[in-house]
Amino acid sequence: MSKVYSLPSRLKEDLKLVEDELTRIVSLKEGKLAEAALTTLKAGGKRLRPILVLLTGMINIYDVSKLIPSAVAIELVHTASLIHDDVLDGADTRRGSPTINATWDEKVAISTGDYLFGVAFEILSKLNNPYLMKVMAEAALALSVGELHQMRTCRNFNQTIDDYLTKIRNKTALLFSAACSMGAVLSGAKETEIEAVGRYGENLGMAFQIYDDVLDISGDKRILGKPIGIDLKDGMVTMPIFLALQETSQRAYLQNVVENVNSTEEEIEKAIRIIKATSAIKETKNRAKGFVEKAFEALKLIDADEARRELRFIGEFVINRYH
Amino acid sequence: MSKVYSLPSRLKEDLKLVEDELTRIVSLKEGKLAEAALTTLKAGGKRLRPILVLLTGMINIYDVSKLIPSAVAIELVHTASLIHDDVLDGADTRRGSPTINATWDEKVAISTGDYLFGVAFEILSKLNNPYLMKVMAEAALALSVGELHQMRTCRNFNQTIDDYLTKIRNKTALLFSAACSMGAVLSGAKETEIEAVGRYGENLGMAFQIYDDVLDISGDKRILGKPIGIDLKDGMVTMPIFLALQETSQRAYLQNVVENVNSTEEEIEKAIRIIKATSAIKETKNRAKGFVEKAFEALKLIDADEARRELRFIGEFVINRYH
Repeated sequence: MSKVYSLPSRLKEDLKLVEDELTRIVSLKEGKLAEAALTTLKAGGKRLRPILVLLTGMINIYDVSKLIPSAVAIELVHTASLIHDDVLDGADTRRGSPTINATWDEKVAISTGDYLFGVAFEILSKLNNPYLMKVMAEAALALSVGELHQMRTCRNFNQTIDDYLTKIRNKTALLFSAACSMGAVLSGAKETEIEAVGRYGENLGMAFQIYDDVLDISGDKRILGKPIGIDLKDGMVTMPIFLALQETSQRAYLQNVVENVNSTEEEIEKAIRIIKATSAIKETKNRAKGFVEKAFEALKLIDADEARRELRFIGEFVINRYH
Repeated sequence: MSKVYSLPSRLKEDLKLVEDELTRIVSLKEGKLAEAALTTLKAGGKRLRPILVLLTGMINIYDVSKLIPSAVAIELVHTASLIHDDVLDGADTRRGSPTINATWDEKVAISTGDYLFGVAFEILSKLNNPYLMKVMAEAALALSVGELHQMRTCRNFNQTIDDYLTKIRNKTALLFSAACSMGAVLSGAKETEIEAVGRYGENLGMAFQIYDDVLDISGDKRILGKPIGIDLKDGMVTMPIFLALQETSQRAYLQNVVENVNSTEEEIEKAIRIIKATSAIKETKNRAKGFVEKAFEALKLIDADEARRELRFIGEFVINRYH
């Protein structure tokens, strides 16, 4: 199975077009804003959402010029939400680069995020396609609900694994689902296929976020390019923690690390050791795999061979990646 | 001319429906968010944008059930932008009530604003009307551009009256224009009428903001329900200041008050006296009237008598109000 996902070369060129368009649009504004937005855009990101738009755009008739605006819009919505998230989390770095709120201030971050949301919806609104608008508006609303949910449950041990699943569905999975539905619709896919890739995207997104949360505990910071234990430090209770609690006798220790704003590096490292001493990492990876299997199940309804194969590759990448 | 605008009684009932729907939608979320959003919604506001949707909805066939979602969505976008504005301005009160960032914190304000933006677009997207989405997306984008513009020109005396006009067009006028176009479209108005009320709305919005900026200097705080001189305190250069500069010898004093974060109440009061000693207030009111006249000019293209008459009343209200 692939540790690194490699796009078919045709799509590589097309993803480059998306990238160029993202840069062009963000650079339209002068000054701090363009600089701030570009910094966030360039700080990496795998462009998974635009890739999903392109791949699902192969389900029927592939026309990259039709797909670019939606691929750009969805990455802008994602970027805007990351920028606001960084303010809400008080994060100083993202993927090793300083955040907008750290480099400039929270005000620049708020207005840059608002601007990118605005640009995304303006791009989409020009396509005169109510379906695309509806899908994106629902996903953007879900993002903000997830954001609120995250704030409410932060440093709060009194939550269930269902709270966690609802949160990641809103914060990650529904935007993945939107990307897939949009590509499929733009290719002129059948209703059953649109519904199926939507389901694929949602389950893929769940798996992606769960695996991301695993990497925050069991990953290698040199490979990840970022420190581990960030979720613990930020007081987020992720699936590995919920599952570790079912086995460990050190519940009180984990609770204290999550609830305490001032947990030290040593305490976080010890919490990670406690979690790793259980089967939580393995079990969480299994749950992520379970979601990928549901995603694969949905793919059976897709006729187009190349699209189905590539969407499977993405699923395998998500649960086998190192970063 | 009317000092207080009074809606026709039919519209009063319908505005009540809009109000109930706003409350209902905002209350769908539990906890802090609903409380925070409701506080801002209830902190007053004249509901001018929903009123404009209803009034322009009379241009052809008036159907309140069709108008309510757009009236609600536009007030939510406006409210969201006020909430983010309060964070950007570091404002503690709005219309005498504490802001969300003052009562809770900036994080609650950011996420409440994001949520209301999301809800607004979701409501609109359900109407399956690409024109409405386009108008609102453009207005929301303009809002964020105006927000950025305001941040960039804040405490900066090196700007022109054109900077000011561009900023208020983005921050106020284009949302007024959107409200009017949306109502007209929903009533099934002719293309020429839609274009004309759009122009009416834009000019009305310009007049409204200019007059608001006059009141911040020449208003009576007991009637306004808020202190005066807030723009000066916040380092905003508004039209009365630009015009005062053309006459006064005290340019350096005004510049210092605007550029200095720590201007005292006494310094702000002196700046107000300097401005009032010129013809700036009178001249600014004239400019506001000029925009209202342009708005009235556009109304000539509207056939429907009642709509035209009420839209004129609104124009007169805007430049004759005390608050």
